[in-house]
Amino acid sequence: MSGRLIGVGTGPGDPELLTLKAVRALQSADVVAHFAKRGNESNARAIVAAHLRADVMELPLLYPVTTEIPRHDPAYRTAIAAFYEDAARAVEAHLRAGRTVAVLSEGDPLFYGSYMHLHARLAPHYPADVVAGVTAMSGCWSAVGLPIAQGDDVLTVLPGTLPEAELVRRFADSQACVVMKVGRNLARIRRALAEAGRLADAVFVERGTMEAMVAMPLAEKPDDRAAYFSIVLVAGWEARP
Amino acid sequence: MSGRLIGVGTGPGDPELLTLKAVRALQSADVVAHFAKRGNESNARAIVAAHLRADVMELPLLYPVTTEIPRHDPAYRTAIAAFYEDAARAVEAHLRAGRTVAVLSEGDPLFYGSYMHLHARLAPHYPADVVAGVTAMSGCWSAVGLPIAQGDDVLTVLPGTLPEAELVRRFADSQACVVMKVGRNLARIRRALAEAGRLADAVFVERGTMEAMVAMPLAEKPDDRAAYFSIVLVAGWEARP
Ligand SMILES: C[S@@+](CC[C@H](N)C(=O)[O-])C[C@H]1O[C@@H](n2cnc3c(N)ncnc32)[C@H](O)[C@@H]1O
Ligand SMILES: C[S@@+](CC[C@H](N)C(=O)[O-])C[C@H]1O[C@@H](n2cnc3c(N)ncnc32)[C@H](O)[C@@H]1O
Repeated sequence: MSGRLIGVGTGPGDPELLTLKAVRALQSADVVAHFAKRGNESNARAIVAAHLRADVMELPLLYPVTTEIPRHDPAYRTAIAAFYEDAARAVEAHLRAGRTVAVLSEGDPLFYGSYMHLHARLAPHYPADVVAGVTAMSGCWSAVGLPIAQGDDVLTVLPGTLPEAELVRRFADSQACVVMKVGRNLARIRRALAEAGRLADAVFVERGTMEAMVAMPLAEKPDDRAAYFSIVLVAGWEARP
Repeated sequence: MSGRLIGVGTGPGDPELLTLKAVRALQSADVVAHFAKRGNESNARAIVAAHLRADVMELPLLYPVTTEIPRHDPAYRTAIAAFYEDAARAVEAHLRAGRTVAVLSEGDPLFYGSYMHLHARLAPHYPADVVAGVTAMSGCWSAVGLPIAQGDDVLTVLPGTLPEAELVRRFADSQACVVMKVGRNLARIRRALAEAGRLADAVFVERGTMEAMVAMPLAEKPDDRAAYFSIVLVAGWEARP
């Protein structure tokens, strides 16, 4: 009898933003798998540390490349696809042995998360559940008390990796915007917001809901340095009754 | 000394999708306020029922109008604005008496939620916290195991109340889409998806994560009836490594 795959959303950072369902999934799992860069501790694992059983098996899934190869180089895609294949095979070995494997995912598992790559490969063949999590964007707008969208507002979620002209067009065409993957892209995001006339509405949030959280209006941020865990929020909701 | 306002996200319906932080906020609150249509039980209250202290004070906030007046009629806006004012004054009376008031909000409080109207009125004057929640869309795509967006995908959240041409344009211009407020708008949403060439990718989810959940490809749904708690999901993620 094969085991069960569970994608577990850990929320954006504050361990209290874990759901009751995630806690129960962690307590019932035989194996807890987590993604991390080689040499780094998994952030998702740190979020759930208090809920890991002492006898649980851990399966770290370590990214081979990150910054060494440019993201649009075919070599990058080859290396990352091979990594997801290997990770899926490592998880699958436990499923075949009848073990329940919880794969941790920062925020929500199916929203720009690495877990999706395992889900796409394994869910067609094994029983699989996904435990929804609080997304980074929800954690961030809640932490700064920013009502993001209401009524007929359109909300657009944009990866900060998009070309500048594309960002400008989207910022100008949506009441509310969220920019993910801000990291090294903040200078371009800032220029695009300014060109779209939205810079004054933008809020920068770094490590939202974590202890080291920093938040400020983007227009007041003196530099374009941003940690990996950074987001930019532009609120809609102009027509308030 | 004044009390504290807490907007508490209850998640999309499954009581297990409540966060640890929400449970703690409910246990510490003197007053629990919840929105409902007159004559209906509050859905958010039903989600958290198991966590309400026996001695907690409850403050139901009952919408005066819903379907009687058309939504774009100025009389609707006047009535709804007066309701939010009254609701804010009712909550404020408890805050002035030094009580902590938890206001329940389905899903995430600051994402198309009624709580936003109280937050905008009261947070400038009283200590206020927001407990982020799992959104309805996260609950729905997790419940059906649908990876929604990855990599450079743009995800657009659209109220189903938008004009048809606007829906068509947005469906055609975004890798991933989520349509909220589907209720009476499903026929128009379906036509717009077909015109944008995206109908085959659309998934309909009614009462996601609740016991009575129904989900199916929209193209296979034989009618255009949809409960208030309904959403349409169009997944992105074309370029899978
Ligand atoms: C690979 S995506 C994962 C998103 C996650 N699955 C979710 O549901 O939000 C990583 C991006 O999420 C954002 N992010 C994640 N956690 C964050 C936090 N605590 N504060 C700010 N941004 C965060 C950053 O933009 C980062 O580049
Ligand atoms: C006023 S909005 C509230 C959204 C909520 N604050 C959130 O974070 O998702 C109500 C809309 O959310 C969607 N919704 C809420 N709960 C849902 C559920 N359990 N299943 C499907 N759709 C739901 C429906 O589209 C509904 O029209």
